[in-house]
Amino acid sequence: MNLSKYNFFCVTSFGSTMKRSLRRTLVRSVSLCSRILNHGGTGSRKFTVLLCVSVFLWFNLSAQQATWIWYPGDYEIWLSNNMQNRRTDRGAFFPVFWKIDSHYPLMDFHRDYVLSQPEDVTVYAEGKYNVKLDGRLLEGTPQTVTVPAGKHRINIKVFNQAAVPAIYVAGKTIVTDSSWLVTFEDKEWIDETGKTSDVSATKWLNAGSWTFTSPIHPPSQFRLPVKAQSAVSVTKNGSSTLVDFGKETFGFVRLHGLQGKGKVTVYYGESKEEAQSQEGAIALDRLQINSASKTDSVMPLSKAFRYVNIETEPAVRLDSVSMLYEYADLKDRGSFRCSDDEINRIYDVSKYTLHLNTREFFIDGIKRDRWVWSGDAYQSYLMNYYLFFDSPTVERTMAALRGKDPVTGHINTIMDYTFYWFLGIYDYYLYTGDKTFIRQFYPRMQSMMDYVLGRRNKDGLLEGLPGDWIFIDWANGLSKKGEVSFEQMLFARSLETMALCADIVSDADSKHAYTKLAAGLKQKLFSLYWNPEKHALVHSRVNGKQTDNVTRYANMFGIFFNYFSEQQKQEVRQHVLLNDAVQKITTPYMRFYELEALCAMGGQDYVLQQMKDYWGGMLKLGATSFWEEYNPAKKGAEHYAMYGREFGKSLCHAWGASPIYLLGKYYLGVRPTSPGYATYTVEPKLGGLKWMQGTVPTPAGNIELSCSEKEIKVKGAAGLGTLVVHSKRLPVCKEGNVERKGNNLYEVKLQPGKSYTIAYAAN
Amino acid sequence: MNLSKYNFFCVTSFGSTMKRSLRRTLVRSVSLCSRILNHGGTGSRKFTVLLCVSVFLWFNLSAQQATWIWYPGDYEIWLSNNMQNRRTDRGAFFPVFWKIDSHYPLMDFHRDYVLSQPEDVTVYAEGKYNVKLDGRLLEGTPQTVTVPAGKHRINIKVFNQAAVPAIYVAGKTIVTDSSWLVTFEDKEWIDETGKTSDVSATKWLNAGSWTFTSPIHPPSQFRLPVKAQSAVSVTKNGSSTLVDFGKETFGFVRLHGLQGKGKVTVYYGESKEEAQSQEGAIALDRLQINSASKTDSVMPLSKAFRYVNIETEPAVRLDSVSMLYEYADLKDRGSFRCSDDEINRIYDVSKYTLHLNTREFFIDGIKRDRWVWSGDAYQSYLMNYYLFFDSPTVERTMAALRGKDPVTGHINTIMDYTFYWFLGIYDYYLYTGDKTFIRQFYPRMQSMMDYVLGRRNKDGLLEGLPGDWIFIDWANGLSKKGEVSFEQMLFARSLETMALCADIVSDADSKHAYTKLAAGLKQKLFSLYWNPEKHALVHSRVNGKQTDNVTRYANMFGIFFNYFSEQQKQEVRQHVLLNDAVQKITTPYMRFYELEALCAMGGQDYVLQQMKDYWGGMLKLGATSFWEEYNPAKKGAEHYAMYGREFGKSLCHAWGASPIYLLGKYYLGVRPTSPGYATYTVEPKLGGLKWMQGTVPTPAGNIELSCSEKEIKVKGAAGLGTLVVHSKRLPVCKEGNVERKGNNLYEVKLQPGKSYTIAYAAN
Repeated sequence: MNLSKYNFFCVTSFGSTMKRSLRRTLVRSVSLCSRILNHGGTGSRKFTVLLCVSVFLWFNLSAQQATWIWYPGDYEIWLSNNMQNRRTDRGAFFPVFWKIDSHYPLMDFHRDYVLSQPEDVTVYAEGKYNVKLDGRLLEGTPQTVTVPAGKHRINIKVFNQAAVPAIYVAGKTIVTDSSWLVTFEDKEWIDETGKTSDVSATKWLNAGSWTFTSPIHPPSQFRLPVKAQSAVSVTKNGSSTLVDFGKETFGFVRLHGLQGKGKVTVYYGESKEEAQSQEGAIALDRLQINSASKTDSVMPLSKAFRYVNIETEPAVRLDSVSMLYEYADLKDRGSFRCSDDEINRIYDVSKYTLHLNTREFFIDGIKRDRWVWSGDAYQSYLMNYYLFFDSPTVERTMAALRGKDPVTGHINTIMDYTFYWFLGIYDYYLYTGDKTFIRQFYPRMQSMMDYVLGRRNKDGLLEGLPGDWIFIDWANGLSKKGEVSFEQMLFARSLETMALCADIVSDADSKHAYTKLAAGLKQKLFSLYWNPEKHALVHSRVNGKQTDNVTRYANMFGIFFNYFSEQQKQEVRQHVLLNDAVQKITTPYMRFYELEALCAMGGQDYVLQQMKDYWGGMLKLGATSFWEEYNPAKKGAEHYAMYGREFGKSLCHAWGASPIYLLGKYYLGVRPTSPGYATYTVEPKLGGLKWMQGTVPTPAGNIELSCSEKEIKVKGAAGLGTLVVHSKRLPVCKEGNVERKGNNLYEVKLQPGKSYTIAYAAN
Repeated sequence: MNLSKYNFFCVTSFGSTMKRSLRRTLVRSVSLCSRILNHGGTGSRKFTVLLCVSVFLWFNLSAQQATWIWYPGDYEIWLSNNMQNRRTDRGAFFPVFWKIDSHYPLMDFHRDYVLSQPEDVTVYAEGKYNVKLDGRLLEGTPQTVTVPAGKHRINIKVFNQAAVPAIYVAGKTIVTDSSWLVTFEDKEWIDETGKTSDVSATKWLNAGSWTFTSPIHPPSQFRLPVKAQSAVSVTKNGSSTLVDFGKETFGFVRLHGLQGKGKVTVYYGESKEEAQSQEGAIALDRLQINSASKTDSVMPLSKAFRYVNIETEPAVRLDSVSMLYEYADLKDRGSFRCSDDEINRIYDVSKYTLHLNTREFFIDGIKRDRWVWSGDAYQSYLMNYYLFFDSPTVERTMAALRGKDPVTGHINTIMDYTFYWFLGIYDYYLYTGDKTFIRQFYPRMQSMMDYVLGRRNKDGLLEGLPGDWIFIDWANGLSKKGEVSFEQMLFARSLETMALCADIVSDADSKHAYTKLAAGLKQKLFSLYWNPEKHALVHSRVNGKQTDNVTRYANMFGIFFNYFSEQQKQEVRQHVLLNDAVQKITTPYMRFYELEALCAMGGQDYVLQQMKDYWGGMLKLGATSFWEEYNPAKKGAEHYAMYGREFGKSLCHAWGASPIYLLGKYYLGVRPTSPGYATYTVEPKLGGLKWMQGTVPTPAGNIELSCSEKEIKVKGAAGLGTLVVHSKRLPVCKEGNVERKGNNLYEVKLQPGKSYTIAYAAN
């Protein structure tokens, strides 16, 4: 059930203004038809109606769809400010601790049109605005403008400090969309004779937009949709009402039939223990009831919980409790099913975990921090490519994270998180093929990289300076001193990303410079950190000397960055990844990369067991979503503690959902080999499963796959695929040619839209 | 008459919350007194009351005054955005064409206190906020907090996108003021064990504030005060009602007794011709009336006018028209009276012109542009030092003009205007001695200068690059090509300002660098632009070659910047300033500097006549405020045209008010010789007047002066003065020692607070 009060998405298409526009089109159609009929003599009523319907449809189909537009990144920053500052802790507002930026309050939008006939356009704006036609300011604040036939320029200038200046213009052919240009600085002066300035230096960008296609639902009013959900059990005990919603969830708690006078406190819990701890629950709401008749109350902020415990004072009565589930309405395009039920459950709970944490942006956790963290978001992007393939959420998140110039600190204050931001762009381009973000944000990529380059020490390496947080992972006693190898490796990859993007925007000098910097840094990574006796990169350098410590971080990234030689890979696998003497990882966050590194080296069998142990371990403890951290050594409610607080841990953390990515990329084995899946590889690995089947989304359609130990069926909607088959005997395929690659490896080229069935024998 | 609906200032001191605070203090006093009396035995009722009153007063005097605080510059930017975007043109919103910035939406405020006893404090905030005591987040959104005895830190963090995060905290000793520290980036993270980060790198600034001392009047609600004023004449003519307010004014037009149904249009005019031109009036309001009974209507935006012409449709009736005069409540501290009535009228109209254009900020003109222009504001600062001496308006204006990083263009897009901004800081320090602005804005001074330095050409000179406006002055055919000498001169002076400010903030390296740059540029100014045959600096260099053209601009600035040798000064005076063959100046804007240059060389007699001709010329044409431009060659309504528009010219322009400055600095002859008037000079020059008397404000009190041809009386409230007397014979002074300086020049040292009478014989 959708409740229109809370629901925005469901009304965009058929809102009342849309009706108005339809009505207008209908009037136009009827008017045109009657003119045709008057000319053509008499016709039957049936024909008239038919003609009207046809013309009506023609008008509608030929009319372009307008959308709200703004300066790229500005709405994203504004919305993320609002979203991130919704976190509370014990009822107190709990904001982020880094600089947040603002939109430009004054914006100029324009587009040139060539019209074959005059056209009426309707103008909507968020903010105070004016309209210029061919540079001439129109009187007042026009809501409709007639643009004459011929070539004309429309400028609309909007001022808004509270929300992002945005416009929505709709005519028959003139509609706001990303083809409109925007600038925060038009420099349109006039001299004393009335001559206007040369504004050739004005930097215009293509406008940003999202899915706001209704003029009466401007961007500032956007809310995620909600739907009503019921509790699965209610336990009353004196003044307490403990409500269980059956699984981790997120939304607005609704109290029904409140009556009387006194205090009510709602304690939220991801665990029953948390909801029942009046001192320990992280989230709570306090209400003062004073009502003779029964009333309902919806809590003002959506929150994360499975349980809520409601404490009422004696003179207050409460009938029941329900909730409004708040969600981003993203559809699953990816899927995975296999012969192992535990893996299927892991996949489903991963999906649910990712859904809960994919909101206006990709956030870390729904209870805590409810913030956009670059390192966390980076993993969500990758999972997204195997589940929703929702590009706007990736772009929004990257834009919000970057904020604006000047750069005064690392993204989220964390050095590694700055680098994940660059890496996210690299992947975004590879998976989607979309260059728009890069074209719009390249200057901000440069200034971010300038900030990093300006913080190198005399050896050209990065170490933590005051104000820098070297995070890496939550791990006991992990040293952040000196120059940590992991940071240099991410830095090198980020420089490679800059070189790639410089190429895309045709900045040849910078491409050369970044390429050179990246190569130099990679060379140092091995000359300074590789220890042949330890067969690994060491953790850090302190005072110019290698430390003895080996950790997993740089070593596992080196594998899937393909920075190691084949020989080094095997050494690292043996001496680091599969070496229990090296400190173990206890967060799903770094298990993501650890397991990815193992998969990249063909360790699917081992990784499948690890998934069953680790994620399966959480399920065995009753998890209904995956956690921020899981240490099998802990017991009972110990699992809920973190940050020195009894219920400090988040039990629904996006980084817990990585099986989505691992199963899609390394078991179904689908990955792009050129931007936007123009070419791609499908290399299925059962890893011990009897069979598996699934779907992987790409920009232009899905890749569908099923795989048993004897047969592979595959179909890709677009792009040129290469199926890589590991088989003990020569595979047979009627639809395509099987090429021998030696060493039990075979390839079949896949044409778009064609189904292939391959008989083979799994190794 | 003050109308509380529109008036903010008049209620700040005795608002209802202030009453609450007084009541609280009274209760405390009575309670303390009764305790004293209970201890001390019996006392008369009279004594009790006396004691209560004393203790009440003691409480009040000892309690500190709290004020609203914010991040320095943020409120100024936000307020100027609102103000500058109130301009309309033919009813259309008419915004600025440069980048405007935003406040930081998230702000952390803190202060440490050492209390001898616990203290209750009340917290007010603009925005969502939380409170931390010694790093511990308090539950909910506390409105009162008890701070225990001992040393404690209070942090308040505020989020607000629509308006500037601001707080007001009031206790007995704990009050918000500029001693509180603020940051937009506290970087206060915690690790997984709950340990907080080292935040030693956080940059804290002292908070900004103004005069907002009432908790119930937060900064975002600020409005200038208004008072009702009546028309001096009303002329009805058919559907028109022409209302004359007697002189140029500014405010909200009120229509009284509107009744009926139909349209009403209000045309505003600085001249009668403008108000009566339905097509030409720059400002107008359109109303739709539909009221059976009589109603009053106040126009939504304050506007500039002397006349309003109201056109009503036949079915609409209108009783009368009045206005609410809107003003900044600044008091005149400076004064000037002399033997010449025309000069007195020029001074009075200058004062009124400056009052009208001194609003939330120093603006250019009240009709047009109603914007903060750096070059215009720079002159207002100087006039201000001789009239209001209102430092907050100067600081606010400089903060608003600078905006925020990154710098993407010159201030107001104009190269010269960037330099006036630096020059304004130089003067501000000299006149006020206040280093606060410099300490807070030095980083923004640096980034502004970095922008300029980054735009030098291969010869180290500045020429107009795309997007740069080289303004200089409104003057027909003035060349802006190549490297204009005037711009290099302002650049050199700006570099000198940077060196001065670097010294103030103890940035020795930068001081050295700026000093060297300034010296190099000054050297080039003479080697590249001085033409011995023309006895002047030429206007520009084009393609590396001197042009032939000589204009007044660089030459007159060189005089009062003291860049010329004595010989060069005389050459420039003769061959440029007093040379009618050099293009004449037609704006009061540049006449300001031209006359200043002449005064600086002792030309007071000549300048007095020029003032009478030029400003007196406007008065003779009926001006009630001084104009943007005045060309005596024009006739009748020609005077009102500019920018290719019939009524394009502003008839009330701040830069028209410069006689305030010239009379104060060069006739009364008062000027600081070290920052903040610690030392100063008084060098009266009658310039042909029989007598003059006046007052010049300084930070710690006024300097009062009267001067005839035989006697000078002078008294300075603070600082060490030097009276410089030009006398044909040895002056006589009972109160001080007269020193001979040769060449009919004498000096008397002036002690603070002491009156001096000097008998002398004017040259």
